[in-house]
Amino acid sequence: MTAAELYRDATADEIDRAVTHADECVDVMAALPGAKIGELLDAIASHIEGLGDELLQRAGSETALTEARLRAERGRTTNQLRQFAEIARDGSWKQVRRDGPMPDRQPARRPDLRRTVIPIGPVAVWAASNFPLAFSIAGGDTASGLAAGCPVVVKAHPGHPGTSELTAHAVEKAIESVGLPAGVFSMLQGSSPEVSLRLVQHPKIAAGAFTGSLRAGRALYDAASRRPIPIPFFAEMGSVNPVFVLEEALRERGPSIAEGLFQSVTLGVGQFCTCPGLVFAAEGAALDEFANTLRDRFKASSSGSMLTPSIARSYRDGAAHLATIEGVHTCAPAIKGDGTPMLFEVSDDTFVKNEELKHEVFGPSMVLVRCASAERMLEIARSLEGSLTATVHASGHDLERNRALLAVLTRKAGRLLFNGFPTGVEVCASMQHGGPFPATTDARFTSVGAASIQRFARPICFQDCPPEFLPPELQAL
Amino acid sequence: MTAAELYRDATADEIDRAVTHADECVDVMAALPGAKIGELLDAIASHIEGLGDELLQRAGSETALTEARLRAERGRTTNQLRQFAEIARDGSWKQVRRDGPMPDRQPARRPDLRRTVIPIGPVAVWAASNFPLAFSIAGGDTASGLAAGCPVVVKAHPGHPGTSELTAHAVEKAIESVGLPAGVFSMLQGSSPEVSLRLVQHPKIAAGAFTGSLRAGRALYDAASRRPIPIPFFAEMGSVNPVFVLEEALRERGPSIAEGLFQSVTLGVGQFCTCPGLVFAAEGAALDEFANTLRDRFKASSSGSMLTPSIARSYRDGAAHLATIEGVHTCAPAIKGDGTPMLFEVSDDTFVKNEELKHEVFGPSMVLVRCASAERMLEIARSLEGSLTATVHASGHDLERNRALLAVLTRKAGRLLFNGFPTGVEVCASMQHGGPFPATTDARFTSVGAASIQRFARPICFQDCPPEFLPPELQAL
Repeated sequence: MTAAELYRDATADEIDRAVTHADECVDVMAALPGAKIGELLDAIASHIEGLGDELLQRAGSETALTEARLRAERGRTTNQLRQFAEIARDGSWKQVRRDGPMPDRQPARRPDLRRTVIPIGPVAVWAASNFPLAFSIAGGDTASGLAAGCPVVVKAHPGHPGTSELTAHAVEKAIESVGLPAGVFSMLQGSSPEVSLRLVQHPKIAAGAFTGSLRAGRALYDAASRRPIPIPFFAEMGSVNPVFVLEEALRERGPSIAEGLFQSVTLGVGQFCTCPGLVFAAEGAALDEFANTLRDRFKASSSGSMLTPSIARSYRDGAAHLATIEGVHTCAPAIKGDGTPMLFEVSDDTFVKNEELKHEVFGPSMVLVRCASAERMLEIARSLEGSLTATVHASGHDLERNRALLAVLTRKAGRLLFNGFPTGVEVCASMQHGGPFPATTDARFTSVGAASIQRFARPICFQDCPPEFLPPELQAL
Repeated sequence: MTAAELYRDATADEIDRAVTHADECVDVMAALPGAKIGELLDAIASHIEGLGDELLQRAGSETALTEARLRAERGRTTNQLRQFAEIARDGSWKQVRRDGPMPDRQPARRPDLRRTVIPIGPVAVWAASNFPLAFSIAGGDTASGLAAGCPVVVKAHPGHPGTSELTAHAVEKAIESVGLPAGVFSMLQGSSPEVSLRLVQHPKIAAGAFTGSLRAGRALYDAASRRPIPIPFFAEMGSVNPVFVLEEALRERGPSIAEGLFQSVTLGVGQFCTCPGLVFAAEGAALDEFANTLRDRFKASSSGSMLTPSIARSYRDGAAHLATIEGVHTCAPAIKGDGTPMLFEVSDDTFVKNEELKHEVFGPSMVLVRCASAERMLEIARSLEGSLTATVHASGHDLERNRALLAVLTRKAGRLLFNGFPTGVEVCASMQHGGPFPATTDARFTSVGAASIQRFARPICFQDCPPEFLPPELQAL
């Protein structure tokens, strides 16, 4: 029996029921003190841990990710939940403020104005394929949505339906254990785009959060924007995460940077949003050595199983297409399999001429662009699309000499790294996991870190409200 | 010579030039210290004051607004500019934060992460008809865009093209006086939708802000969302601003509430976004007295000139249509003119049956809905569209008895008023001038008050950046 047979798509009725139940919980959730939301999120974390190895085994069998990776990912997932529990309890994320009354002001009195935020309403979340725990059923989007006080309806990813069922069950038990109504959270299975479209178009859905491909993310964003009542839709989609290796750094430590890049691009079989897909460096003896090291590492590498057959197929097709472009030199291991690491080398001219080289190929592929000069590299940087990250490797006077490049990269990415590698996203208050389109649909928000809660809340101002009817956080002001 | 002949629409070339110049200023603006942006905004305020009475006279002749109103509006405009100058200088709106490095953390070190915000890029602003100064060329959207460090291109409203030229000239002189490049600000005239569409579709425009009708706002939002690279577009559009007069308040002070509502709905010939268009109260002797007072005031009122012939036409048509609906009782002064205050009385059944009664008619019109009971009023409240404001008049035990209504209104509006009248929007940190669609396209933002700057900035995280290359606000962390 295939997954599609075991886990059938949610029907229109089931979608409507889930969203209607979520909507019925809006007032209950909105009235909860932060401590209670914290209790809920902590309980979800505990119930996920309570699933024990069964969850890891199921996830492993559905995604081909290693146990070690899944164990670490489970830790990240429960950490995220507990971080958001703390954020909900603390409450300072609401940024409350007050402009007190001025009864005698001329020409008109100033009323008492107090501002807080309220949950935006039922949130639809689309689980990602590449994080079956940390960006799936009880992942960052769900955790931040619940922390904001929103009921959440999650569309499971068809790549790991069993893992999703297990997790959803844990969430349901956690909700019950803290005495909240079941409608606070629902999961829908769905491998057909119909399920997603029905969900995003449901009149009672108030916001959406998605992690996945550009094509699916754009389609859902379009549907969200075209509704009779449009809703905010945050999609985190494609990102090439360009890396610039500057002159002195290349000379001083080219091989070690090459080694780090190889590790980063092949981590998790290249299936991270922040996988470094484009590398730029200026021509010279140091670049030859750098490229040699990269080539050696790619040649000596081996294939890895990808998350789903369809991701493997997309990767194979995408990489095969790049290899056919005139002027592209391809380097791959002798034995090719599912997720074969692929290195493509091109001149700056070839890169400029072929738009498709600028787009993400999801998987362990890297395009090394050999630039005639630093000026040429700057010019090309200006033409890049938005990304989640941009990275600069610099030594000595490199940064001083490339201030213009830094300014350009600041405009292109949500996170700017120095002498590091973009994979590995810290879950913390300072993180920005977002960036200009096509990295996301709205660069003003993030889907990782404390600030991701801001996607799901909207401000409200109370004017001359009798204190006892104000939300608790405004009574104290 | 008509305005259309004097002020011709900007050509495609002119639009492209304005946006290109704006884009060329992005790095210069982004690198400015807050003090310099403050200097610019203060200079704009001074140069507007320097226009003296000529500005007020021109605005008066183009909009039919009184000199007293325009004088007050100019004060609000320069106050807004100076408030944003202070916000830019202060810098705390950037909400910078840091998660410091943990070199020894296992299994991986934590890098040094510091977060700030950067300007989103060139902002397009659409001037409103109803605030020829405070929401026009140098109004709130322009002030908050510049304060965020964004170059701004403003599309002037064809209702007051001469006022716009004068103001734009003052802004240009202010920019010159502080030594910034001219591209930081441009104004485009345009009465055809083509100009607006070209502007919102220009690839180098990074965000849009609009105040005006639902039809125009939605069309531009749609265009912004359908771009190959979609951009955030904040439109502040239609709002009915419902008012609920509860039982004890109606009995205790019905006539004085009626008087206040009449003043609010006719203020500025009803041409405010927060004009109270819908009033709900429960049947009884007190409602009869309340309605009598309202009727007397409407009957004794006189017409006022509206901002433009097309607004006057829309108002006349909209009000005339309401009057034709079966079950609608109309009350208007004997002498009818341009902007005639109109009161419509309906039963709850008539209101529920006729969807068009729920929509805004821009101008001094008010629909009084006589509800059979408080339960019926609650039920109807649930069916209302989003609004900028919702108002409750309550005495004694009214609020305690209507907690469910308060919860519903919280979900419907951006500002909740108690025993007040919605016109009159304070420009301050706690203000929320936004609300669920169709009030705005994104209830998470505001177009009035300090928080309006957040529309035009996006976060960026610097990872392990050498201190001397960090933005100044991150160096100090």
